[in-house]
Amino acid sequence: MWEAFLAILTLSLATGAAPEQLCKYDDVLQYLNISSEKAPPLRTIPKENWKEPLKVEIQFILISILSVTEKLQTVTVYFLVTMKWKNVFVTWNPQDFCNISNLVLPVDTFWFPYIIIYEQVDEEKSLSRPFLSITHNGIISTTQQHQVTITCSLEMRQFPFDTQMCNMSISSFMYSETDIILRSSQTTEEANKQSQLYHLTNGEWKFTNINIIQYTESLEEEEFAVITYEISMKRRPILYVLNLIFPTCALYLLDMAIMFSASSYGDKISFQLSLIIGESVLALILKDILPTSSDDPPIIVMFFIGVFVLMIMGVLETCLLMQLKKKPLNPLLKAMKLLRCRKQSRTTSGSLLSKQGWCLVTYI
Amino acid sequence: MWEAFLAILTLSLATGAAPEQLCKYDDVLQYLNISSEKAPPLRTIPKENWKEPLKVEIQFILISILSVTEKLQTVTVYFLVTMKWKNVFVTWNPQDFCNISNLVLPVDTFWFPYIIIYEQVDEEKSLSRPFLSITHNGIISTTQQHQVTITCSLEMRQFPFDTQMCNMSISSFMYSETDIILRSSQTTEEANKQSQLYHLTNGEWKFTNINIIQYTESLEEEEFAVITYEISMKRRPILYVLNLIFPTCALYLLDMAIMFSASSYGDKISFQLSLIIGESVLALILKDILPTSSDDPPIIVMFFIGVFVLMIMGVLETCLLMQLKKKPLNPLLKAMKLLRCRKQSRTTSGSLLSKQGWCLVTYI
Amino acid sequence: MWEAFLAILTLSLATGAAPEQLCKYDDVLQYLNISSEKAPPLRTIPKENWKEPLKVEIQFILISILSVTEKLQTVTVYFLVTMKWKNVFVTWNPQDFCNISNLVLPVDTFWFPYIIIYEQVDEEKSLSRPFLSITHNGIISTTQQHQVTITCSLEMRQFPFDTQMCNMSISSFMYSETDIILRSSQTTEEANKQSQLYHLTNGEWKFTNINIIQYTESLEEEEFAVITYEISMKRRPILYVLNLIFPTCALYLLDMAIMFSASSYGDKISFQLSLIIGESVLALILKDILPTSSDDPPIIVMFFIGVFVLMIMGVLETCLLMQLKKKPLNPLLKAMKLLRCRKQSRTTSGSLLSKQGWCLVTYI
Amino acid sequence: MWEAFLAILTLSLATGAAPEQLCKYDDVLQYLNISSEKAPPLRTIPKENWKEPLKVEIQFILISILSVTEKLQTVTVYFLVTMKWKNVFVTWNPQDFCNISNLVLPVDTFWFPYIIIYEQVDEEKSLSRPFLSITHNGIISTTQQHQVTITCSLEMRQFPFDTQMCNMSISSFMYSETDIILRSSQTTEEANKQSQLYHLTNGEWKFTNINIIQYTESLEEEEFAVITYEISMKRRPILYVLNLIFPTCALYLLDMAIMFSASSYGDKISFQLSLIIGESVLALILKDILPTSSDDPPIIVMFFIGVFVLMIMGVLETCLLMQLKKKPLNPLLKAMKLLRCRKQSRTTSGSLLSKQGWCLVTYI
Amino acid sequence: MWEAFLAILTLSLATGAAPEQLCKYDDVLQYLNISSEKAPPLRTIPKENWKEPLKVEIQFILISILSVTEKLQTVTVYFLVTMKWKNVFVTWNPQDFCNISNLVLPVDTFWFPYIIIYEQVDEEKSLSRPFLSITHNGIISTTQQHQVTITCSLEMRQFPFDTQMCNMSISSFMYSETDIILRSSQTTEEANKQSQLYHLTNGEWKFTNINIIQYTESLEEEEFAVITYEISMKRRPILYVLNLIFPTCALYLLDMAIMFSASSYGDKISFQLSLIIGESVLALILKDILPTSSDDPPIIVMFFIGVFVLMIMGVLETCLLMQLKKKPLNPLLKAMKLLRCRKQSRTTSGSLLSKQGWCLVTYI
Repeated sequence: MWEAFLAILTLSLATGAAPEQLCKYDDVLQYLNISSEKAPPLRTIPKENWKEPLKVEIQFILISILSVTEKLQTVTVYFLVTMKWKNVFVTWNPQDFCNISNLVLPVDTFWFPYIIIYEQVDEEKSLSRPFLSITHNGIISTTQQHQVTITCSLEMRQFPFDTQMCNMSISSFMYSETDIILRSSQTTEEANKQSQLYHLTNGEWKFTNINIIQYTESLEEEEFAVITYEISMKRRPILYVLNLIFPTCALYLLDMAIMFSASSYGDKISFQLSLIIGESVLALILKDILPTSSDDPPIIVMFFIGVFVLMIMGVLETCLLMQLKKKPLNPLLKAMKLLRCRKQSRTTSGSLLSKQGWCLVTYI
Repeated sequence: MWEAFLAILTLSLATGAAPEQLCKYDDVLQYLNISSEKAPPLRTIPKENWKEPLKVEIQFILISILSVTEKLQTVTVYFLVTMKWKNVFVTWNPQDFCNISNLVLPVDTFWFPYIIIYEQVDEEKSLSRPFLSITHNGIISTTQQHQVTITCSLEMRQFPFDTQMCNMSISSFMYSETDIILRSSQTTEEANKQSQLYHLTNGEWKFTNINIIQYTESLEEEEFAVITYEISMKRRPILYVLNLIFPTCALYLLDMAIMFSASSYGDKISFQLSLIIGESVLALILKDILPTSSDDPPIIVMFFIGVFVLMIMGVLETCLLMQLKKKPLNPLLKAMKLLRCRKQSRTTSGSLLSKQGWCLVTYI
Repeated sequence: MWEAFLAILTLSLATGAAPEQLCKYDDVLQYLNISSEKAPPLRTIPKENWKEPLKVEIQFILISILSVTEKLQTVTVYFLVTMKWKNVFVTWNPQDFCNISNLVLPVDTFWFPYIIIYEQVDEEKSLSRPFLSITHNGIISTTQQHQVTITCSLEMRQFPFDTQMCNMSISSFMYSETDIILRSSQTTEEANKQSQLYHLTNGEWKFTNINIIQYTESLEEEEFAVITYEISMKRRPILYVLNLIFPTCALYLLDMAIMFSASSYGDKISFQLSLIIGESVLALILKDILPTSSDDPPIIVMFFIGVFVLMIMGVLETCLLMQLKKKPLNPLLKAMKLLRCRKQSRTTSGSLLSKQGWCLVTYI
Repeated sequence: MWEAFLAILTLSLATGAAPEQLCKYDDVLQYLNISSEKAPPLRTIPKENWKEPLKVEIQFILISILSVTEKLQTVTVYFLVTMKWKNVFVTWNPQDFCNISNLVLPVDTFWFPYIIIYEQVDEEKSLSRPFLSITHNGIISTTQQHQVTITCSLEMRQFPFDTQMCNMSISSFMYSETDIILRSSQTTEEANKQSQLYHLTNGEWKFTNINIIQYTESLEEEEFAVITYEISMKRRPILYVLNLIFPTCALYLLDMAIMFSASSYGDKISFQLSLIIGESVLALILKDILPTSSDDPPIIVMFFIGVFVLMIMGVLETCLLMQLKKKPLNPLLKAMKLLRCRKQSRTTSGSLLSKQGWCLVTYI
Repeated sequence: MWEAFLAILTLSLATGAAPEQLCKYDDVLQYLNISSEKAPPLRTIPKENWKEPLKVEIQFILISILSVTEKLQTVTVYFLVTMKWKNVFVTWNPQDFCNISNLVLPVDTFWFPYIIIYEQVDEEKSLSRPFLSITHNGIISTTQQHQVTITCSLEMRQFPFDTQMCNMSISSFMYSETDIILRSSQTTEEANKQSQLYHLTNGEWKFTNINIIQYTESLEEEEFAVITYEISMKRRPILYVLNLIFPTCALYLLDMAIMFSASSYGDKISFQLSLIIGESVLALILKDILPTSSDDPPIIVMFFIGVFVLMIMGVLETCLLMQLKKKPLNPLLKAMKLLRCRKQSRTTSGSLLSKQGWCLVTYI
């Protein structure tokens, strides 16, 4: 009490005697009746008439896609959010204070809009202590660094050629639209341009696009303003292609070559088994990367399994051929052989394709 | 003191002079005698008569099953809990305040029910700063985001075709039923419907069902209200089938094929050993996935071990056959051979099944 | 000051006029002179005579053994601790307050015994905000959930058939026995029964027994009360047996079979090398599990190494035999051969055991 | 109030009677009107005239490069930052206080410049509670330990012979240049010398150079002072060379040797397949190290893939040769053979280089 | 104010009337003018004369070496630090207070020396809330549990037979020697004895020795007291020997045996390639353990590489021999052969050592 009284006294005297002394930021603080001795009055929205909602403008800049964890279906992003609103109770005349027209104060000095991200699943990380920038007409703005882990339904069907789209829904939790209206101060184009400009990392994921959707969600008779940022990103498949798809193809090519080579059956089986072990080693790599997510597996797994099946069938075929060569054929098989090879002699060009098929005996 | 007095004074004057000025949220706060300068009075339950328990209604929405760690027997879930109760000391007449009928305030402004989860084992993560929504008749509600790791006795017997059921017991720790009664405001059907609606992720685990059980637990002559949410979830086995069960079967099929092939014994052993090494590589995958939990191992392990044993026995058999071929047979073995093969000649159809059995010499 | 005075005034008036109005918990708080506006007076132990130590009764319930990290020699457990003591300054007559006989208040309202765990090495995790339950005669009790990582000298000698015993020493740090006496309110049997009842998880470790030891430790002329809980737990070895010991035995069996088989020496070496590679793959599994702790390695490692050595020696023996067969023997070796095989012809039953020994030439 | 008054009273009396009693630090605190009972006045910049910006001098010493995570494109560094500025309101005459000329106080006693690091992505870690060192003429300095994880665009093209350069941009967030001017108190040379002196670790990354760039960034009509520290570091490639490049070359050398050896075609294929499996095991190592970052893969991957392709082609070639030997040649192939081998007979020295080429039949 | 006054009043009255009532700890607190209602006066060092430095005695007990991360060059240790100093302003006459001669109070009741560890790189972990133990003559002591991660230049040259020495430098950050003098209250021998006594874990690292070095560091004209604890620890190499060095030697022994065996060249190459693949699997183990730190690699890597090179050369040699056998020798090679084998016939004992050398043809 006393201090405040004395302060006002000093202030009034000072203004009377020497107006050029009023050039400290603390003078504005005293005029606004803010001191660090009492707890900050951050309880209610700064509105003169409670029926008019407060407009909060939001600007979003994506800085980094830090990690995408397919197994947990989470994505960690790092972004900046700038909020701007008007506090009608925090105004002063710059001419009274040597033209001081803006101030920077700790964030808990005044009420500020507390936003939540609906998809967020991990603890928020305090990257920096936020400050408010206040202009004399009551416009307040603040910029916050966020590192947030969100859940995102990752579609692994086309891995590693997949493009993912994750939503981040910013909402002013519990304040309905009659209290706060969130508005994006950027268009989708601006958000894209700014995010592309500041985007720092050049990792596995390539940020391609951001899309801003503003809508109101009704929940139990109240309406809440929500801004959803759809972040699209594309995986860079090059290393997966080189590490997985290329070696698989190469091993299958070898398998084919050995199948048609002039080795003995025993050698053939030996070589084919070596290749199957090589394929198993590749499976070790695949297992670490792939999540066990959806009901239908990624195409790459089907491809891998397919090659594996073909290789196994190659060995089985060689075994069968060896058997057939040694022992006299069943009359049934003999008949089949005759029947099929007659067909094949007509379509010799297709013989490679029907290799895994039935007319095996032609090579005996 | 002074401030409050002045505030009331201003307030009374204001109401006398200009009732349309009473349209700020702060007016209600002043009427309710809340200011940010003193510590919040959050010590006791807001009851007029201490004998009547306070009813707290709880709504639960499961958002995400984030991870299931079989080795540690823990499950991490992300959910929303909405609590609603009545604070009889926080009421006002909306007509006195321009029809302001509800307010949003920080959570520590009033007493609020502090719930615990009995099975929780990890630090609670503060996902968002909670707020209270207060209506003029004293009904207070709050929604909190929780990311919680709970212990759950995971039954791995039927892995990877297992369905797990984990309990989350919400209780108002230390407040007995004479103080607080927890009640679920949803039926099991509603909880299911809402959780299915909001469920975000599409990972390894498929959320199937939620079951609400309300009961009272007596502990040292006092009774405590507990709401248990039984969360059922089903593992999507497809990738385990493709990565583990299918290759194991394929390798065993190959082993059989080689066993009956016309190769020399030396080649056979060589091929079978290759397959055993391939099987060992698969064991590397299995080891990473399986927990070493219960006393009896999962069926998949028994299946794996069984295939391994059969493969080993295949090699042993081939070795024995080779030995028998080279050296003259013991009279004992000769007798056995004669005896058994006579039997087998009658049941030729069963010869495949009894392959790992005793009548090995028929193939010599 | 004023508030307290007014409160007492109101209280005395109230008691005079309408005793049935005294049915709020806040009335007791006011009587006890507790308000949330001043900092809690938690500095000194609530004793009327400083010479009489305060008795604190402790109850311990083990809920979960969460993880045992052999490499770091740490164990993470989750347990409940209930403490009960008497605060002589916090009493009231229930008859004055409509029979209110107990209250629940936040933990920092009064002094409470702060316990430490001597073996704790990781940051304490705040699982739930603790509350105090206070009865009218001053008995205060509080239950806390703890997740604690403790160091524990893990003896790996008998892995995976090991039983570990870890100590958790609870002490009232810095308060000597003249100030606080810690006493377990349970016997060892009760602690066992309760922990077995609540024990949640069914993982790798099976909780077998808990043992309570109470003693006083003297440190620099002062005596401190300590309660040590010895937690015994047994590893479930089944998966280690199936994953490590069984395949190793199987591979060795194969090695023996091949050794005595009728294959050519070249084939034998080839097969044995395959088995050695298979054994190396198993070594990859072993390496991930075993800590590099004590000076003498676990028995399982010695077993593994032994099998490996025997396999290596098997190959060496085959090489030697091949060499001997091809080239004329040294006179020395010839003599040895004659000498030994004469011996062996007498002890034919022991020939299997002395296989890795010297009389190799008998098989040539 | 009273305390302060009494303190001043005591002080004035004391000065009158016994000036040698004024030798406590608390006397200076009382003179500066700082007490721990009121909240610290840390709101505004200590400037007498708001138009003159405050100069803050910054000194930076890099202590450790803790980790470089290529997959996430982040770098964790540990450094010291010393800031020095003048607070014109905190001065005293040392002669009045027994020549006390400097004080050490907790950091929140006065306003201090709050700096942010633009590239920081992880939560700041509080390594030590900072203090301020204050001299009688108002010069305040503070040293802070920082452990910070920053994003950094890591260029993996030349892995493992790469040199990375990461930027750390220190800025006084939200305070424009009219308020605060950040200046580095070191030249680039001094920063290098000091960082080299204190640099503690000797890990995978060798700190080579630090470069200080001071500039102003304009953002929405305001200018902000930024100091960017460019940290250059060099990877120590020796273990990657020994673990990856050397074995790959060795395996390829073997492949060449086997290709030109006098083995049968069947053996050759068998050996080459063994080498391909060995190469696959190396691929397992490579996969763990390499990030899947940029669009064009690191040169080492191309080298690895190249060797793999050559090995595969070696097997294919051997198969082809075997086939050609067995069956009569096509007239086309025969012609090719004749044509090419005539050429080759002239350039025999080049025959090694053209091995993977077309004139394979010369060896048949 | 009032409370204090009343307290003193009560106190004086009490002492007059009933001295046996003064037996509560709170009486001492009131005499010392400490209450929990005002913020603790922790700003300045408790010195009567600012020119005399405060002596702080430090005792250090190492409890556990928790982990050594070679890749990051960090070490995590767990230790106790006990500090003892004199606060001349906190004294009382025990006779006035029923012989109460010491108190235990929360740590923030008085000023306490804040120490930092220079090498610390990770966030400090709050293991327990510290308390102060205060005696009537002003001696204050406090014991703190610390879990600290420090950087330490780990020398991996002699891995796994290495002994590491890590420094922990404790300093009273920013307080120069004119303010605080840190002194170790133990000799090096005492510190060793106590640390050996309390040392809990028996893991990979064996704590061998601790060495205390006290010195003053001058920094910008001021001198700071520093106590450096040199912690020596020895790795237990047994499992590395059994897992890495022994199998490598065994495989090389096999390689040698096969080299000199009587197999055909084709078989020899096949066996040697198998061994090389086995060696690659061991390389997978080595890669996980070894950091990629210094410029010259650990000796064990050189040993490993050496064995690998010898194995590769063995295969090359066998290939060469096979080639030589089949085709007529070059005149050059023939001459070499003659020349060298003449030499060798003289030094037959050295023939094993020169195996990998040039005179290969002697075995043909």
